[in-house]
Amino acid sequence: MGKIVIEKDLFCLPWTQTILGTHLEGKANFMALDWLTRANYKPPMLGICVNKHNASHAAILGTGEFSVNVPTTDMVEVTDYTGLVSGKCVDKSGLFEVFYGELKAAPMITKCPITIGCKVVKTVELPTNSFFIGEIITIFTEDRFLTEGKPDVKKINPFLLTMPDNRFWSVGESIAKAWNAGKALREQMKREG
Amino acid sequence: MGKIVIEKDLFCLPWTQTILGTHLEGKANFMALDWLTRANYKPPMLGICVNKHNASHAAILGTGEFSVNVPTTDMVEVTDYTGLVSGKCVDKSGLFEVFYGELKAAPMITKCPITIGCKVVKTVELPTNSFFIGEIITIFTEDRFLTEGKPDVKKINPFLLTMPDNRFWSVGESIAKAWNAGKALREQMKREG
Repeated sequence: MGKIVIEKDLFCLPWTQTILGTHLEGKANFMALDWLTRANYKPPMLGICVNKHNASHAAILGTGEFSVNVPTTDMVEVTDYTGLVSGKCVDKSGLFEVFYGELKAAPMITKCPITIGCKVVKTVELPTNSFFIGEIITIFTEDRFLTEGKPDVKKINPFLLTMPDNRFWSVGESIAKAWNAGKALREQMKREG
Repeated sequence: MGKIVIEKDLFCLPWTQTILGTHLEGKANFMALDWLTRANYKPPMLGICVNKHNASHAAILGTGEFSVNVPTTDMVEVTDYTGLVSGKCVDKSGLFEVFYGELKAAPMITKCPITIGCKVVKTVELPTNSFFIGEIITIFTEDRFLTEGKPDVKKINPFLLTMPDNRFWSVGESIAKAWNAGKALREQMKREG
């Protein structure tokens, strides 16, 4: 079947590109963040993977709060920039216009269509990274990004990162409906017992 | 600025669609899995969010192993099916041709271009879900999915899920290079001090 083993770092799953917002010594700081996921269903929680060397790591340990901001494809340059320079060396606080929800150490980027404020409920220490699990406190968007009251990915226009080829990608076409596309197969399997 | 607060469940980030492989009572079992991320850089680890009601949850607690399989867009129907029926009610072991690497309770789906075997190193208990962090033990692919020795997302042809609109999406066009697109801005910021 031609299967081969590849390096453990190589697998090229697309991750949604976000910008992590924190407060570092009282000022807003930002970092490109790709390694995140829902970590719990109810209450909704996000888990984020942050390298212990990053300024954002110290910032989150200090405040217990962070924001996840979803940039649009036309923010690709500035998003990439946030991952090229460290908050230890460069003050990135003026990079974006921000606003705040309930969490005063979770700066929300006004230009991002979706911004999520989280409060850390668990910190999992791993060899090179901490995995911060945060309960979602508030999500902000704008009416223009909704369709029938739900965020619409085609209006939000986020982008994806693949590694190790290090490319950003737009979201393509809708190919099927989830929790639906497999229904015909389910009926067939039932009939065949 | 027109910002509005939305329900904490609504944020529509695209997640890469995968199929979780486990062993349940000695047989292969599969479940659609979207909530996963890299959880540590070195050694490479994946973290997955699994609801405590799922058969896969009991399976992982039992064996401490799982696989993450990346289906292609032409597997959308069968992938969706794995999320529509529970391993508690239906035997899904015959759904795919599988092979095994080092981990004998991590069934790899032959048809999937990327298959990743993981050994649980930490289980984080959360209210409705467990977050299983697994060290990547082996990744399998095939030569035809590589470009210059690296997995090529356009050859792998994975797809994405957005919620709560519940749609599957293909990956679109490459829009920029990561760790590169922001370099001009970095130079500009340096000049402007």
